[in-house]
Amino acid sequence: MYPKKTHWTSEITPELHGKEVVVAGWVWELRDIGKVKFLLLRDREGFVQVTLKAGRTPDHVFKAFADLGREDVVVVRGVVEASRIAKRGVEVFPLDIWVLNKAKPLPLDVWSESADLPTRLRWRSVDLKRPRNLAVFSLASRILREIREALYGERFVEVFTPKIIVTSTEGGAELFPVLYFERVAYLSQSPQLYKEQLTASLERVFEIGPAYRAEKHNTDFHLNEFISVDAEAAFMNYNDIVDLLERIVKRVVAAVAEEEKRLAEVGIRPVATEVQEVPRVDYDDAVDRLRQLGYDVKWGDDLTVEMQKALMKFYGPIYFIVNFPASLRPFYTKRRGGDKSESYDLIINGIEIASGATRIHKRDELEEEMRRRGLDPRLFESHLAVFDYGMPPHAGFGLGFNRLVTALLNLDNVRHATLYPRDRYRVEP
Amino acid sequence: MYPKKTHWTSEITPELHGKEVVVAGWVWELRDIGKVKFLLLRDREGFVQVTLKAGRTPDHVFKAFADLGREDVVVVRGVVEASRIAKRGVEVFPLDIWVLNKAKPLPLDVWSESADLPTRLRWRSVDLKRPRNLAVFSLASRILREIREALYGERFVEVFTPKIIVTSTEGGAELFPVLYFERVAYLSQSPQLYKEQLTASLERVFEIGPAYRAEKHNTDFHLNEFISVDAEAAFMNYNDIVDLLERIVKRVVAAVAEEEKRLAEVGIRPVATEVQEVPRVDYDDAVDRLRQLGYDVKWGDDLTVEMQKALMKFYGPIYFIVNFPASLRPFYTKRRGGDKSESYDLIINGIEIASGATRIHKRDELEEEMRRRGLDPRLFESHLAVFDYGMPPHAGFGLGFNRLVTALLNLDNVRHATLYPRDRYRVEP
Repeated sequence: MYPKKTHWTSEITPELHGKEVVVAGWVWELRDIGKVKFLLLRDREGFVQVTLKAGRTPDHVFKAFADLGREDVVVVRGVVEASRIAKRGVEVFPLDIWVLNKAKPLPLDVWSESADLPTRLRWRSVDLKRPRNLAVFSLASRILREIREALYGERFVEVFTPKIIVTSTEGGAELFPVLYFERVAYLSQSPQLYKEQLTASLERVFEIGPAYRAEKHNTDFHLNEFISVDAEAAFMNYNDIVDLLERIVKRVVAAVAEEEKRLAEVGIRPVATEVQEVPRVDYDDAVDRLRQLGYDVKWGDDLTVEMQKALMKFYGPIYFIVNFPASLRPFYTKRRGGDKSESYDLIINGIEIASGATRIHKRDELEEEMRRRGLDPRLFESHLAVFDYGMPPHAGFGLGFNRLVTALLNLDNVRHATLYPRDRYRVEP
Repeated sequence: MYPKKTHWTSEITPELHGKEVVVAGWVWELRDIGKVKFLLLRDREGFVQVTLKAGRTPDHVFKAFADLGREDVVVVRGVVEASRIAKRGVEVFPLDIWVLNKAKPLPLDVWSESADLPTRLRWRSVDLKRPRNLAVFSLASRILREIREALYGERFVEVFTPKIIVTSTEGGAELFPVLYFERVAYLSQSPQLYKEQLTASLERVFEIGPAYRAEKHNTDFHLNEFISVDAEAAFMNYNDIVDLLERIVKRVVAAVAEEEKRLAEVGIRPVATEVQEVPRVDYDDAVDRLRQLGYDVKWGDDLTVEMQKALMKFYGPIYFIVNFPASLRPFYTKRRGGDKSESYDLIINGIEIASGATRIHKRDELEEEMRRRGLDPRLFESHLAVFDYGMPPHAGFGLGFNRLVTALLNLDNVRHATLYPRDRYRVEP
């Protein structure tokens, strides 16, 4: 039986000089210069150099080395030594080695950035061995933890709402049908209606889970299954939620900054490592600025990614657009006198990351907005009924988690921030 | 515009005597005894008594009180006073009140426990106003947070794997079909194969998300959509995972114990408020015990809920059964010499809460176990292929979150711990 890993490779530092450790991981590289042999061992956190020396290293370890190949799974027990020449100033002299599994030649090159995206996604579980992917997905987990901690800290409770539903949340959306026993149901596009209803009891709720859009477009920033971070709070308005999102953004950017060195090593330059204040740009001002820049944009138009990228000149990589025309927003968005609405988008690196509003909490206003948009209130009766029994004023956000990671890390495709993407043409692995 | 909530009702204590506060919530009860009137206000965290007194309370507040009805949404600004007669030794004398929404008479009685489960689920968003539900779902969020913190603390990273898949994870399971553009796909029953594959890169992963079983039975402890907590770790075996689960159980039970008073107030007696050591019972010993008790159980039989409840006499409300016959476990379970396997179940209050094993990490063994169970390895080729490229030894668990809450709180139906349950006959709300 092999011994337990005592240290991650990143924890093997010169300060451990003389200590015995157990490292475990995969053979990244082998070098044999006769009496000295090197095994560069990878684990999730990085690399450590294992050095075999004639006269010092036990014979059976030398023998095992001779049979090793790249990506073989190994556990090494050895002694740490500080070193002036080894990578990161440290190496491990092995006392024992266990080869736990052998690897065939890999179907794609994980040692360089040469493989193209389709090949990588075809062999995703192998592709994930690349240090760049290990860094991205470790950090994604950290970012998620920061978001949750921010929400817990403001007394939100985490909830789960069903992903199998009977009607469209917003009306007219493209949904994936599910055969649910004897009937047809659909995959949920958003927990919007559930989270609003929950503000009447749990007051502040959030949910992190999958959402589905059966849209046929196939772009760098759309997926048909994505992770949605949704929050909704009673007795709050959109300004409170924009404040909350700003606190979340600061917290998340600080977490990214802590990983700046590791990210640099894998060629990733985050879009920001510090945030002072996030600008809140009125939609009207954004349109004015865009016209100054020569864009043909009319009041009431949605802004494109290109336009949002152009606005970075004025507002930096992270900004809010607030007070959108009501006609651009879903029926449950509260008006702000006349044609505007108490709504906002969070834009990072030109991409819409989060979106939200103060919601309507009176049943008659809600019905009116439905009718304005050609939706039949009778189809939403079970939702509307809840508004009869004490619905508080409320506001919230929906945030695309895959997009957040993509934008923060300046990646050029949301698939780089998604373990196993689902898109128009990809439903496996 | 109404002012912001400064305190939750549970935070209004005699120590705040003389302080001005803003509370917000719903009218739970109104009492009018002439010159003194009482409004019992509910929010997620509890209740606070608002006391109106002639000569002290402003006229407009008195007027507003006259029009109030149960479940109306109100914000109250007032002064806290310690009191010998008021509930919880404290009351609020209002200076101002905002009635933000009116409520019609409710479709079910939330003030008592009289409504039956089908009615409750039919009006779930209204039913959730009941203090019992507020306590259960607030605590469920807390339990989840404890699980995650335990896993983060042991260096697991959180991942998301697709819920739309092309083949069954374990073979032969009943899956819900999804119409995914031009093809038929399925809803995932478990992230099992993905999480195993991920141990070859991210080493220690966990996922918390929905899982689907298209099983037609309709029992108190089965749902067709449930929340699965899945973890998997490279370089660990089932004993390491049982240790980890034991630490998680201790942490979660401690969190439940902290809420013991609130739970008692809503009639809930948790199954345990302290755990020393969780017994690890060999399957063979469990069978022997059951035979002593007169159960007709053969070696190789699965244990029923009734049997698992009977075993509580010997092992208490929380125990593990370990080393199951290999024939009872899925193909990816590692054998333990002969007919037994490196597997375990976590049983709480007689119900199977979590289950796991050391997994097979060699392709040829995996294929052999598939064939033993009549599964065709060719159907699993894309999974098996990953085992060619450096699969580490690994082990993990799958835990049913809804069941965990149900069992810990001694509830008699998993639907009590599920916001909007999905079962054989229920796909809305």
